[in-house]
Amino acid sequence: MSNARTLPLLEPDGQGVVPCCPPLTERPFTAEEAETAARMFKALGDPVRLRLFSAVASHAGGEACVCDISDVGVSQPTVSHHLKKLKEAGLLTSERRGTWVYYRVEPSVLAAMGRLLTSPAAGPAGATTGN
Amino acid sequence: MSNARTLPLLEPDGQGVVPCCPPLTERPFTAEEAETAARMFKALGDPVRLRLFSAVASHAGGEACVCDISDVGVSQPTVSHHLKKLKEAGLLTSERRGTWVYYRVEPSVLAAMGRLLTSPAAGPAGATTGN
Repeated sequence: MSNARTLPLLEPDGQGVVPCCPPLTERPFTAEEAETAARMFKALGDPVRLRLFSAVASHAGGEACVCDISDVGVSQPTVSHHLKKLKEAGLLTSERRGTWVYYRVEPSVLAAMGRLLTSPAAGPAGATTGN
Repeated sequence: MSNARTLPLLEPDGQGVVPCCPPLTERPFTAEEAETAARMFKALGDPVRLRLFSAVASHAGGEACVCDISDVGVSQPTVSHHLKKLKEAGLLTSERRGTWVYYRVEPSVLAAMGRLLTSPAAGPAGATTGN
């Protein structure tokens, strides 16, 4: 099972994980789906957290420790605080190695988030809307 | 040109609109990019707003008025308030027709949001990372 755990946006399944929610354009979200997905969006709704998330997501090897991403203009305790929030929202996982905690963006979570925002009409070969 | 206007996530260009920000996995966001994208994520970080956004996005013809989507368990003034917030964040556009204001999700905005969350490693044919 590696270091898999129950992520808010993904639910464990026999085969792996299943995204919580359909694309936003497919049908109106239920209250439960909206609760789950809104938690994730809210976590990314802070500029500093978003920069940190991007810093982890784009770091070599897909993971980073606080020591790697402390150049966003806030103190290291603040960085740690925000990383913890992202972790609580299920957007990052973490692993301690020696002195440092390493944070990682789960590709499956990114994929689930991207799926939420998939628009059938957005692609270059998307269907034309009637009127 | 239609009813295009400057959306926070998109910037006007000679050819049309250009997304504000690269995918989150490409490189760390700058402070300015994070401000822009976080505003959009924050707008979707409320369960009621997310349900309303989904209701508009999935409605026939890609647009809806308050009269179409009032079944989320809050009053119509509250619905209108949330739709206004989504509009201010650049996620919806609106047009008055007679008694009602119709809201529409811009496909280009959805595409830009989806692009932010694109993970090269998430697709079935994604490139393998070196180490």
